[in-house]
Amino acid sequence: MSDIDNGIVYLNGEFLPAGEAKISVLDRGFIFGDGVYEVIPVYGGHLFRLPHHLQRLDHSLEGIHMANPLAHNHWQAVLEQLVELNGGGDQSLYLQVTRGVAKRDHGFPPDTEPTVFAMSNPISAVPESLREGIAAATVEDFRWKLCHIKAIALLPNILLRQQAVEAGAEEAIMLRDGFVTEGAASNVFIVNNGVVLTPPKSNLLLPGVTRDLVVELCQQNGLPCVEGAISEMQLKEADEIWLTSSSREIIPVTRLDGLPVGDGRPGRGWQQLIALYQQYKQAFREGRVT
Amino acid sequence: MSDIDNGIVYLNGEFLPAGEAKISVLDRGFIFGDGVYEVIPVYGGHLFRLPHHLQRLDHSLEGIHMANPLAHNHWQAVLEQLVELNGGGDQSLYLQVTRGVAKRDHGFPPDTEPTVFAMSNPISAVPESLREGIAAATVEDFRWKLCHIKAIALLPNILLRQQAVEAGAEEAIMLRDGFVTEGAASNVFIVNNGVVLTPPKSNLLLPGVTRDLVVELCQQNGLPCVEGAISEMQLKEADEIWLTSSSREIIPVTRLDGLPVGDGRPGRGWQQLIALYQQYKQAFREGRVT
Repeated sequence: MSDIDNGIVYLNGEFLPAGEAKISVLDRGFIFGDGVYEVIPVYGGHLFRLPHHLQRLDHSLEGIHMANPLAHNHWQAVLEQLVELNGGGDQSLYLQVTRGVAKRDHGFPPDTEPTVFAMSNPISAVPESLREGIAAATVEDFRWKLCHIKAIALLPNILLRQQAVEAGAEEAIMLRDGFVTEGAASNVFIVNNGVVLTPPKSNLLLPGVTRDLVVELCQQNGLPCVEGAISEMQLKEADEIWLTSSSREIIPVTRLDGLPVGDGRPGRGWQQLIALYQQYKQAFREGRVT
Repeated sequence: MSDIDNGIVYLNGEFLPAGEAKISVLDRGFIFGDGVYEVIPVYGGHLFRLPHHLQRLDHSLEGIHMANPLAHNHWQAVLEQLVELNGGGDQSLYLQVTRGVAKRDHGFPPDTEPTVFAMSNPISAVPESLREGIAAATVEDFRWKLCHIKAIALLPNILLRQQAVEAGAEEAIMLRDGFVTEGAASNVFIVNNGVVLTPPKSNLLLPGVTRDLVVELCQQNGLPCVEGAISEMQLKEADEIWLTSSSREIIPVTRLDGLPVGDGRPGRGWQQLIALYQQYKQAFREGRVT
């Protein structure tokens, strides 16, 4: 376990080695999955799209009836210190807030201190093998109906991802009532006849920060992009399928349920978008965009 | 927090004071809600319906693709020792198994030791106030579709319970597509024209041990009892509504969404069943049933 015990983490006001960071067995995160989280990439020591992540954190906390235990500038200070303590440069930050330690009872505890945890993981360049295209498998979206909350109660996502892995794929693409929602840990885009399409924001999917950036990049660069429902048939007949997430950026799906997507290679739309994304990242590193 | 730090708990092979029982922040129970649990009442030092609980634990673990880390007789030894260390008599045991400590990644970790935790809580006689009838509120069941797994990822149940509390009720009764599934932490029975009705077992509700015992008690005592779907209208027009759970046994619901159930008092059916339940418990205490 030496590989996971490296690094300095933040826990309830303290910075300490990961291996020493322990929580009570009565933490409602452990007992109930009663908490929310964020994952924030760091490039050149700078937190990528931090305001977007903190705003989503606020929405997630509101969704589970919790106040944000830290002000945004306090979060920024904590996270920047965490980045520095872990050597700066490129990292992937993870933060989690739970309803804290209380006697086990479903009802909200009256006055409990939230648990606030944050850690840093190495972020490497997205492997070229992924950019050559991955396999995805469609699965039935059996999750709850508040998927816009970035909740730590991720067991359903884990089981759906595993279902895809057992089908020989790397990611699950979920269908609810015949329409695409999202991946187990990603958002979904398709390209059909030159138009980029991604499901609209709703309670059935996470409003991805990378998803929003991809939509913005399309709009800024005159690429036709529509936020609209994607049927199972549209997915299966798509010229291109992409998955987006903070850590993997934009990944082309070249096989779906064992069949090639389009001509079975990363498409032109993806090539355009990944180039725009890299330009944006470079501009961010150089402080030209925030 | 002194009240929750009392007692001896079991954690990964050790018995230790609750206040000292800590887990890694990287435990998949804390990070993902990736685990399952059981609650087992103890009467006169004896574990109530232990084989039923351990069998359900096996099913829950199977549902999340985990092997049971302890053999049934090993569980029994651990739990009996826990009961003894907490003073014997009447208690409520809680046990939880998670997929253990691993680097955060949705996929199953290759070879991680599961985390095994168990604690004891005081169990008092069910308060008379509850037996005089409680208020329940109907809510839309927005949970996932594998509710037969007793998973620790209970955030949806918590939010639904809270919704009921905010409506002035003590428990939520969930409706999915117009049919009753269960309570936030209980199973639901109704009585209509002298027939006891409870939803059939399916992936949409937890197969409660107390639920099964109530069905058994009806059958053994010649009370008409049917396992069948309950529509919202049947619920609202029911002569009686009961909620069952290990810790609260059988509780009559006398108000639903602010309106009286039947004549607004605990019904005859409930009186019969609670008497049969108490007899069974007494027989269990005296070793006449197991």
